[in-house]
Amino acid sequence: MPGNSFGQLFRVTTAGESHGPANVCIIDGVPPGIELSEDDLTPDLARRRPGQSKITTQRDEPDHPQILSGVFEGKTTGTSIAILIENQDQRSRDYGDIQHKYRPGHADYTFDAKYGRRDYRGGGRSSARETTVRVAAGAVAKKLLSQAHGIQIVGFVTQVGDVHADIPHPEKVTLAEVEANIVRCPDQGAAMKMIDLIEKVRSERDSIGGVAQVVATNVPPGLGEPVFDKLKADLGKALFSLPAVLGVEYGCGFAVGTLRGTENNDLFTTDDAGKVTTTTNRHGGMLGGISSGLPITLRCAIKPTSSLPQDQQTVTTKGEPTTIATQGRHDPCLLPRFIPMAEAMTAITLADHMLRQRAQCRNA
Amino acid sequence: MPGNSFGQLFRVTTAGESHGPANVCIIDGVPPGIELSEDDLTPDLARRRPGQSKITTQRDEPDHPQILSGVFEGKTTGTSIAILIENQDQRSRDYGDIQHKYRPGHADYTFDAKYGRRDYRGGGRSSARETTVRVAAGAVAKKLLSQAHGIQIVGFVTQVGDVHADIPHPEKVTLAEVEANIVRCPDQGAAMKMIDLIEKVRSERDSIGGVAQVVATNVPPGLGEPVFDKLKADLGKALFSLPAVLGVEYGCGFAVGTLRGTENNDLFTTDDAGKVTTTTNRHGGMLGGISSGLPITLRCAIKPTSSLPQDQQTVTTKGEPTTIATQGRHDPCLLPRFIPMAEAMTAITLADHMLRQRAQCRNA
Amino acid sequence: MPGNSFGQLFRVTTAGESHGPANVCIIDGVPPGIELSEDDLTPDLARRRPGQSKITTQRDEPDHPQILSGVFEGKTTGTSIAILIENQDQRSRDYGDIQHKYRPGHADYTFDAKYGRRDYRGGGRSSARETTVRVAAGAVAKKLLSQAHGIQIVGFVTQVGDVHADIPHPEKVTLAEVEANIVRCPDQGAAMKMIDLIEKVRSERDSIGGVAQVVATNVPPGLGEPVFDKLKADLGKALFSLPAVLGVEYGCGFAVGTLRGTENNDLFTTDDAGKVTTTTNRHGGMLGGISSGLPITLRCAIKPTSSLPQDQQTVTTKGEPTTIATQGRHDPCLLPRFIPMAEAMTAITLADHMLRQRAQCRNA
Amino acid sequence: MPGNSFGQLFRVTTAGESHGPANVCIIDGVPPGIELSEDDLTPDLARRRPGQSKITTQRDEPDHPQILSGVFEGKTTGTSIAILIENQDQRSRDYGDIQHKYRPGHADYTFDAKYGRRDYRGGGRSSARETTVRVAAGAVAKKLLSQAHGIQIVGFVTQVGDVHADIPHPEKVTLAEVEANIVRCPDQGAAMKMIDLIEKVRSERDSIGGVAQVVATNVPPGLGEPVFDKLKADLGKALFSLPAVLGVEYGCGFAVGTLRGTENNDLFTTDDAGKVTTTTNRHGGMLGGISSGLPITLRCAIKPTSSLPQDQQTVTTKGEPTTIATQGRHDPCLLPRFIPMAEAMTAITLADHMLRQRAQCRNA
Repeated sequence: MPGNSFGQLFRVTTAGESHGPANVCIIDGVPPGIELSEDDLTPDLARRRPGQSKITTQRDEPDHPQILSGVFEGKTTGTSIAILIENQDQRSRDYGDIQHKYRPGHADYTFDAKYGRRDYRGGGRSSARETTVRVAAGAVAKKLLSQAHGIQIVGFVTQVGDVHADIPHPEKVTLAEVEANIVRCPDQGAAMKMIDLIEKVRSERDSIGGVAQVVATNVPPGLGEPVFDKLKADLGKALFSLPAVLGVEYGCGFAVGTLRGTENNDLFTTDDAGKVTTTTNRHGGMLGGISSGLPITLRCAIKPTSSLPQDQQTVTTKGEPTTIATQGRHDPCLLPRFIPMAEAMTAITLADHMLRQRAQCRNA
Repeated sequence: MPGNSFGQLFRVTTAGESHGPANVCIIDGVPPGIELSEDDLTPDLARRRPGQSKITTQRDEPDHPQILSGVFEGKTTGTSIAILIENQDQRSRDYGDIQHKYRPGHADYTFDAKYGRRDYRGGGRSSARETTVRVAAGAVAKKLLSQAHGIQIVGFVTQVGDVHADIPHPEKVTLAEVEANIVRCPDQGAAMKMIDLIEKVRSERDSIGGVAQVVATNVPPGLGEPVFDKLKADLGKALFSLPAVLGVEYGCGFAVGTLRGTENNDLFTTDDAGKVTTTTNRHGGMLGGISSGLPITLRCAIKPTSSLPQDQQTVTTKGEPTTIATQGRHDPCLLPRFIPMAEAMTAITLADHMLRQRAQCRNA
Repeated sequence: MPGNSFGQLFRVTTAGESHGPANVCIIDGVPPGIELSEDDLTPDLARRRPGQSKITTQRDEPDHPQILSGVFEGKTTGTSIAILIENQDQRSRDYGDIQHKYRPGHADYTFDAKYGRRDYRGGGRSSARETTVRVAAGAVAKKLLSQAHGIQIVGFVTQVGDVHADIPHPEKVTLAEVEANIVRCPDQGAAMKMIDLIEKVRSERDSIGGVAQVVATNVPPGLGEPVFDKLKADLGKALFSLPAVLGVEYGCGFAVGTLRGTENNDLFTTDDAGKVTTTTNRHGGMLGGISSGLPITLRCAIKPTSSLPQDQQTVTTKGEPTTIATQGRHDPCLLPRFIPMAEAMTAITLADHMLRQRAQCRNA
Repeated sequence: MPGNSFGQLFRVTTAGESHGPANVCIIDGVPPGIELSEDDLTPDLARRRPGQSKITTQRDEPDHPQILSGVFEGKTTGTSIAILIENQDQRSRDYGDIQHKYRPGHADYTFDAKYGRRDYRGGGRSSARETTVRVAAGAVAKKLLSQAHGIQIVGFVTQVGDVHADIPHPEKVTLAEVEANIVRCPDQGAAMKMIDLIEKVRSERDSIGGVAQVVATNVPPGLGEPVFDKLKADLGKALFSLPAVLGVEYGCGFAVGTLRGTENNDLFTTDDAGKVTTTTNRHGGMLGGISSGLPITLRCAIKPTSSLPQDQQTVTTKGEPTTIATQGRHDPCLLPRFIPMAEAMTAITLADHMLRQRAQCRNA
């Protein structure tokens, strides 16, 4: 099927451009009887929205979700759930520069190459604005996961530029620790340095990259399929489907390149309740692509914002050399607002595999 | 749909265990009229097969593919292509240890958690043996891509343990350079060190991890979809679906965490033919999830082989402490044989997106 | 994937209940550059809407479609198209009877059996109201088909109760002939009798069934796949997915049961342009599940409206015997409003297979 | 995805031509722990195979299925199950006539129009030979359905030419009654007339059409989805995907065209156990596209065999007028061998929806 849907059984389909009237998603496959209201969606939308702090873009979009279907008397009915989020201030402005020039790092050129045309009012379909409805769908997935198994999904920033956080127990990080600062880094000392760096970069009309981590706890063992739809594969796709992600790793990740088998293998043991577990979690909660019951740990490399308020060399749509500088306010660092997006895609993927496991094996 | 299929339009479905009679794949959606014979499949199967060199496992499986359908008078008919590869020597042996103990790093425990039972003769469905038919399907995809656009896909090893190759122009690496040594590293000096390291590790009854790179050249701009099915997302899933992959990155990858926008953005220009291109390729050939026409560059982190010929602590299927040591011969380093698998999954993904682009936009 | 999507490449996903705020569809896979505005959607929506004539329900819902995405400067962009149609007058009334009793012929009981709960304000998700957005999506498909190959899709009523129309050349029926009367039967004499019968049935607080036909002309040969996704199979599913359809046939249909091979086979010949064709069209434009270039002829059996304004025996949701009589105004015959729905599903199916043919064979 | 797969969760993918080395299917999504051996597949394959009686084709193909994967120690493992059935006697003969002429009623022309080429050795991919592996997959589905809910699926012939069977209680027909005669009609008197008619038609070098019925009993209420994937829609597609099917109906079917609502509605009541049911079953076991718990009753119109051992007018592949007479022996009536195919597709569809119901609602 075409590329605006994600998931096999918990399935999210989206539509919407940055400057159209609205973004909308349809969530299909949600079990009936889950309590759900618009209030369940607003916290994560508030974490994603622009204008939430001094280090994000100052555009202000309140992002009120409207549930159009699939919920009756406060609970899901089992039928498809449509959620609509109107775009504010999407009126036509002068987009001349974007219309006729290719912004470095953006999808302007590749859209033209693909479709022969594009909506040049902002990022169009490739704008991060499309992630609003993903975050809303993720909130639905989080409710389902939490009710079924107490699954918790917490994301946080571990690196901005050369500032690295020290997070000895990522599986113990709480939402409160993450939300305690505007950069969403649970190492409060590192967080201050990250904020300083982001402000410095902005003052220099530049942007900066970083690394985000997502941890899912209480995931039951057995989720994921052995071959193509390994849980790591579907989580990898989920995270790579987000804008600006240049790398994804789990467990040891790229550090495994220098490890020996004796250093890397996690040894099996049993916990106090007699349940099989491992003494360490270098495998990031997945073995053979199937969840092991240990915390799932994922990391994403995020590139610096491509939009820069300074002249960059480029070409016009006709191929003539020119320069372009971004008008308007943009996030100098994408990491803080990336966190709820990454949590949402993780939640959607886990919800999907939980339903798949119910279908085939009935033990989730 | 269940997890034994990959791709939307160039679609590969597989079946088979390590110790059953055969592995089989069905490839659906192949355009008619492509010249194809079993000889097209054997070179990559030979690169994947065990026993090919002193640094791989010494088991010897010839892996003769049989095309059962979809090819007539030497060309594809457009109907589904079944390829069967018999397993040699799959007779029942004594698998007592694997049957009753969980091997560290393997999927034994997670299979039991998922399905309540497993084929304990070797890795069963999670054995790397299932990749034979993926490699065969990848060879079909390579033919299609090559005929349509001259697309070439070349994989190679860039790191084994702490030995790093120096490959200044990954987009220029040739298959011949890769196949010039048994570790499949085009930096011939580094290759020698890698081979020495692998032999040392094996003599110490251990294994070692590393990093592989895949480069696809001549990919036309416009492949990939803007939201969930970004080309990077589907390639990410494709590579994560292979055994032992703990991380995937493209372009700058995780190194982007320390970069500024001014350092990371690739600037647009035109080439001699007037075609839009970029002066550098930190974006790894994909912008907004859509191919840019620049070489696509991907890297995978590969863990050290989990099977070790020395005692490792573990538990029995009943949760009692025990130890297990792998019997039989295993690759001390998975990297050399991983290369054709990674190329195959890259080819399948690109072929799929090429057909998708033909469906919607007719310009591929 | 769950059941609220249809089509592989031209893919329609819908949401919405009869008494929620709106119905919405997302159409994915539409080629870029197709001229499209809300005016393209309104004619078929007007043909589907209630209150259009004296023989349909008198509820009045204007059904104004809003295109929320995927169209820019009057043309499709290639990104997903969301269309929203608000429900008028969906305010909460007293639905006590429907809430606590199972209406004969309706999905009330089966919804409860499936989901354990249901939206009892009208038909909820199983209301024919959900077909509004299908009709809108069908209008998009019709534009695509018309531009690509001049494909025309015309539906009409051939039977109401025991009144049978005489339509010697179904492939020549025009939209104007269909719309010349309120029952949508191109045999104007039969149409008058049908209208009289429907009015008689209504006056007797009853309803009546019938048969509808859909004809698609100018369909190029080669659409459809040889095995599971035969064109007849996907068209069959498309039509059976509409409410009240109890049977689907094409070509000779059930009449073939008494025919011999010598009577039924259509003989091949060539037309004036030298193109292969058949001398007759008992095969309904599909051979081996693939379009032959001849007109595609389909017929659907439509049951009488289940809602009746007279007491019918039933049980409460607790299983106690009771009676129920439908409140409000309902169509005494579903056929006239079924026509645009059937055309829409036919168009969506053909558009999907046209794109599939482009993907694999590039000759559509 | 391409057209050689069927089902979302119980998913069957097939490959194979009539004159290639083998037909193969991969069944994905089968729950683990189901007892399964090749002996479970052979009874239905014997019912489907040619040469089983004097009224079927006299070709003799034993159709021994080989299970290549997914079964271990006599039970399914949950991984994909590959089943291979070799073609006997597929050696190259002289196919000159079929190669250069279009057989009336066959897919020769439409294949050429679609793919630009075809395997002209017999029917290639459009041969009924491809249904061997569907029947094998159907036998797996039947086991699953029988174990889970005691679901039974029985098909039989109700009409051959103008001979109509009298079957007052289709839901009570047993397999033994069906297999009591070679035409598979449980009305033994009508069966004799049907056999006589078929022999007469064959002696006249002609063929004859008919109607088949399939009944599924003990289907729990709640299977099927409310909109596109109505159970009737997926069953309709399943049956239309079989060769020679020109019409499908359920419940009252086309007879509903003359019925009034008061005549057609089935009234709700409760059975002795207090379970909701209906007093009659004109709705064929499905309301709103969802199973009601009543027997599911389906009927298919089957065309007369297109291959005739007498000259028929046609054209060559170059469009020149010619005649063609079928060589070799063909079934003069497709009905008897159609029965196991129809049962198989019904079983696959119900198994798929049972797993879907487990995924979302956990009550199947």
